[in-house]
Amino acid sequence: MTAIASDGGSEPTLPRPTPPAGHAFDGDFYRRSLLENTLPFWFPRSVDALHGGFLHCVDRDGTVVDTDKSVWAQGRMSWMLLTLHNTLEPRPEWKQWGLSGLQFLQQHCFDADGRMFFHVTADGRPIRKRRYAYSECFASIAFAAAARATGREEHAQLANQLFEQFYDWNFTPGRMPPKFAATRPMIGLGPRMMTISTVQELRANLGPNAEHQKRMDRCLAEIEELFVKPGLRVVMENVAPNGDIVDHFDGRQLNPGHAIEAAWFILAEAEHRSDSRLTRLGCQMLDWMWERGWDEEYGGLFYFRDVSDRPVQEYWHDMKFWWPHDEAIIATLMAHQLTGDERYARWHQQVHDWAYAHFADPEHGEWFGYLHRDGRRSVTLKGNLWKSCFHHPRMEWMCWRRLTAGGAAAESRGA
Amino acid sequence: MTAIASDGGSEPTLPRPTPPAGHAFDGDFYRRSLLENTLPFWFPRSVDALHGGFLHCVDRDGTVVDTDKSVWAQGRMSWMLLTLHNTLEPRPEWKQWGLSGLQFLQQHCFDADGRMFFHVTADGRPIRKRRYAYSECFASIAFAAAARATGREEHAQLANQLFEQFYDWNFTPGRMPPKFAATRPMIGLGPRMMTISTVQELRANLGPNAEHQKRMDRCLAEIEELFVKPGLRVVMENVAPNGDIVDHFDGRQLNPGHAIEAAWFILAEAEHRSDSRLTRLGCQMLDWMWERGWDEEYGGLFYFRDVSDRPVQEYWHDMKFWWPHDEAIIATLMAHQLTGDERYARWHQQVHDWAYAHFADPEHGEWFGYLHRDGRRSVTLKGNLWKSCFHHPRMEWMCWRRLTAGGAAAESRGA
Repeated sequence: MTAIASDGGSEPTLPRPTPPAGHAFDGDFYRRSLLENTLPFWFPRSVDALHGGFLHCVDRDGTVVDTDKSVWAQGRMSWMLLTLHNTLEPRPEWKQWGLSGLQFLQQHCFDADGRMFFHVTADGRPIRKRRYAYSECFASIAFAAAARATGREEHAQLANQLFEQFYDWNFTPGRMPPKFAATRPMIGLGPRMMTISTVQELRANLGPNAEHQKRMDRCLAEIEELFVKPGLRVVMENVAPNGDIVDHFDGRQLNPGHAIEAAWFILAEAEHRSDSRLTRLGCQMLDWMWERGWDEEYGGLFYFRDVSDRPVQEYWHDMKFWWPHDEAIIATLMAHQLTGDERYARWHQQVHDWAYAHFADPEHGEWFGYLHRDGRRSVTLKGNLWKSCFHHPRMEWMCWRRLTAGGAAAESRGA
Repeated sequence: MTAIASDGGSEPTLPRPTPPAGHAFDGDFYRRSLLENTLPFWFPRSVDALHGGFLHCVDRDGTVVDTDKSVWAQGRMSWMLLTLHNTLEPRPEWKQWGLSGLQFLQQHCFDADGRMFFHVTADGRPIRKRRYAYSECFASIAFAAAARATGREEHAQLANQLFEQFYDWNFTPGRMPPKFAATRPMIGLGPRMMTISTVQELRANLGPNAEHQKRMDRCLAEIEELFVKPGLRVVMENVAPNGDIVDHFDGRQLNPGHAIEAAWFILAEAEHRSDSRLTRLGCQMLDWMWERGWDEEYGGLFYFRDVSDRPVQEYWHDMKFWWPHDEAIIATLMAHQLTGDERYARWHQQVHDWAYAHFADPEHGEWFGYLHRDGRRSVTLKGNLWKSCFHHPRMEWMCWRRLTAGGAAAESRGA
């Protein structure tokens, strides 16, 4: 058995204890939790001093349990660091570490055909490339944040180019190899919501772009027309190309956390455009998927549900994952701020309290990722090929921005 | 939303209540449970009178929740029906239903390149073909059982041909597209244990075949030399081609139920050959994976473990699935019968009692498939693209054969 390398950075600063829950509307709470608890869990120890990029597959105390690197995580962690540098305060180490992640992406994460890998070794040799193209998406927003941090045109060009590549791959018929045979094609919410979010990030950091805006508009329209079903009070995760519900396990399966994340992407756009119709759309999506996803018995958000309440095939359907809770904390706060509706304030408080009470690790900081339905911990991992330093710090950063004068000022500069 | 078709057969016979646990060594218990509880749950209602084959994605009361068909399930259910016809008693309906499944396979489940699909619609249009070739494997053993039931040479030829195709696909270097890039290749226990089991089935129904025997011998040797690690007291699920442990999430991940299934394939071979060395190998595999897999806190077998007790990445690692328990009931009984060791009798009693107490559905018969770690039910499904009428009835059939004079007589005729 080969030895697992220890972490690639210097000794971690011990994170301060997780602040108590009950601060759902306290901007300073989110800022402190981000700076004193979440970030010190990851940095500097996850920075790979040897090869660049980040070692993010870690146990509860930060011990590296797998030296492999997720290409998503390299882009996402670079984005987070550079975004904090751009909007919270300009710390040279955040910029340096973020750029090191981007250098790793450029040097190691592209295949000969120009598409990006999904999973590589610590020193950047390819392990897996996937059918879909989210690696490109996360790299795009990271390069956009880098362009703002460095002023380098090369970063802006790469951000645009990678978004084009993602969009082309997903929206040019026949380009992406289908998962299923042509017998029963389906289209997904994922590429549409990611287009919206990516265009928002590119706009915030690079300025408006008419072509990107058209693509976002197309995706907003498709989500409303094909995925949102007012009669059933639901947002579908996958539908037939004409919007029909595909009445099989995969077609019926709902992902409440994903749809709630899409809801806040749309609410952010409603706010940016002062568009009350988009506010209504985002709030409906949140309302319906909260209704579908919230577990009235144990609290927290289910991972999957079935549109007709039939049993779900995926084994982890009733587990509580960290990220849907981060997304719901953002979405409920935005909905409250945009509408003033007290119901959203109650939901925000409710998901904030449940999530900080169940996911937080009072001993080593950050959140655990995976709980059983009843809130017991399933596994001690803090990071793996899917979880890294992204959803949770993004939530704390967004809630800080939305709840404090300093954050609001940053808001008006950017997104 | 298109309507879900109701079941394809006539009204089901209501299964008699699940017999109480505590009959771990009672051959008649297994026979009655098989004939009065398990089979009546599936037949005749899962027989698709319209298109042939079986509708097996069903809820706890047998309601069809997805009309799609797993190609594995078509082969597995045909094999089970034809095997019962061949070895338990010759019932014309078992033969007829089994052959209807094979006709469906022949008419609808082969792609133009000769490889089989994985997942098709009720009327046989392709939904998904996969990288691996287990569809071929299950079809092969079903055609072998059909050859014995019908005496038709065509069935024997197909059985051999499909096994050849499976073997070629798995063991000819470069034939199967790899899941991972060439950076860090791994080989799996799966194709090796399936080769052993398939050759055993072909031998039982078609007679010995020297070429097949050589392939089985190769797989027995590779399991012993590459996957079984006496120093660590473990059977690996995947290793590097030279047998090294790959110290990453996927390489470290153990599947105790799968290794225990492999153990009884090897014990069956030990019995067939009167080979005490193989008995020792099979018993060691069972011993070590029981040690790794049995949950001392809640009982039952974990789905995945990590070879170095680090956290597992797959979300359902600590769930209790039905099939590892069926396999462990068989393996412990065989080990007890072959060695006389009382420890195996205790384990057999223990896993039998836990499984019948937790998986059985006293209301509608058969077993549930998916429990949480603590034995609570995760989902009401009795069948899906993975679970059908196979592991559980196979266990009851095997334990009946091994524990009764009638079964033992059938044993000596066949496998």
